Amino acid sequence: MSNRPPPGQMFATNLDKEVLEEGEIFAPSFDENGLIPTITMHAETFEVLMFAWMNEDSLAKTLKSGEAWYWSRSRNELWHKGATSGQIQKVTEIRTDCDQDVVLLKVIPQSPGACHVGYNSCFYRSIQMNDDGTARLMFEETEKVAK
Amino acid sequence: MSNRPPPGQMFATNLDKEVLEEGEIFAPSFDENGLIPTITMHAETFEVLMFAWMNEDSLAKTLKSGEAWYWSRSRNELWHKGATSGQIQKVTEIRTDCDQDVVLLKVIPQSPGACHVGYNSCFYRSIQMNDDGTARLMFEETEKVAK
Repeated sequence: MSNRPPPGQMFATNLDKEVLEEGEIFAPSFDENGLIPTITMHAETFEVLMFAWMNEDSLAKTLKSGEAWYWSRSRNELWHKGATSGQIQKVTEIRTDCDQDVVLLKVIPQSPGACHVGYNSCFYRSIQMNDDGTARLMFEETEKVAK
Repeated sequence: MSNRPPPGQMFATNLDKEVLEEGEIFAPSFDENGLIPTITMHAETFEVLMFAWMNEDSLAKTLKSGEAWYWSRSRNELWHKGATSGQIQKVTEIRTDCDQDVVLLKVIPQSPGACHVGYNSCFYRSIQMNDDGTARLMFEETEKVAK
């Protein structure tokens, strides 16, 4: 079996489970909305910076351009990360998971503050337990690095 | 405004945007299926091990027990990671993101091989480009560490 998708297509589809998990054919699985979850980590610090979604077009654009493109569910449009903020993410590696329904990007951000709130990472708060069994948040990043 | 959820509830709900992003109240946002995306990374190596989903019950169990509980979408049931495989994940930290609709777990796996295929991480393959513009996978982990 070839490890290439059909002529004219960038990605394969409909692999059986063994080929999907153990093979070298890339057949990304998009959900019922045509989206795939995407985890973005800093290539050098390994910090998880953000979580977003891609559609087939943003995945193709990311692979071809070497910069992160997502799908904005709130704006319902392609989103070239950093196009307006300057927060371009240069992609150093892309991985997928065992059943090829998640994408992991390793990136070098071109300026600090991946999160729109102004922190380096969107995951700037940890979850802590109160004595009464309820949960609260604690800031792990205390200073904003971007507007 | 108190940083506690209403009496009898572990989590708050329906915060306005500023309190959600800038505050200390934990109000996890579950999707239309009652699930929240969960990224699991190794607390020491920072390697992203897996991506899964939690419902409200698995999140509560994870917070209370200090071990990772997920929601299996394929089996449609609560999933105490490692209960059958021995791959228990001790949680050292839990974070959430800016709009509180993603969870990030830092864990110490109690035995190697977080992925059911046998690799340390589910993200054992990178995506590479062929000369003709199609994509293929390349194994970044070459040896299985678990059955």
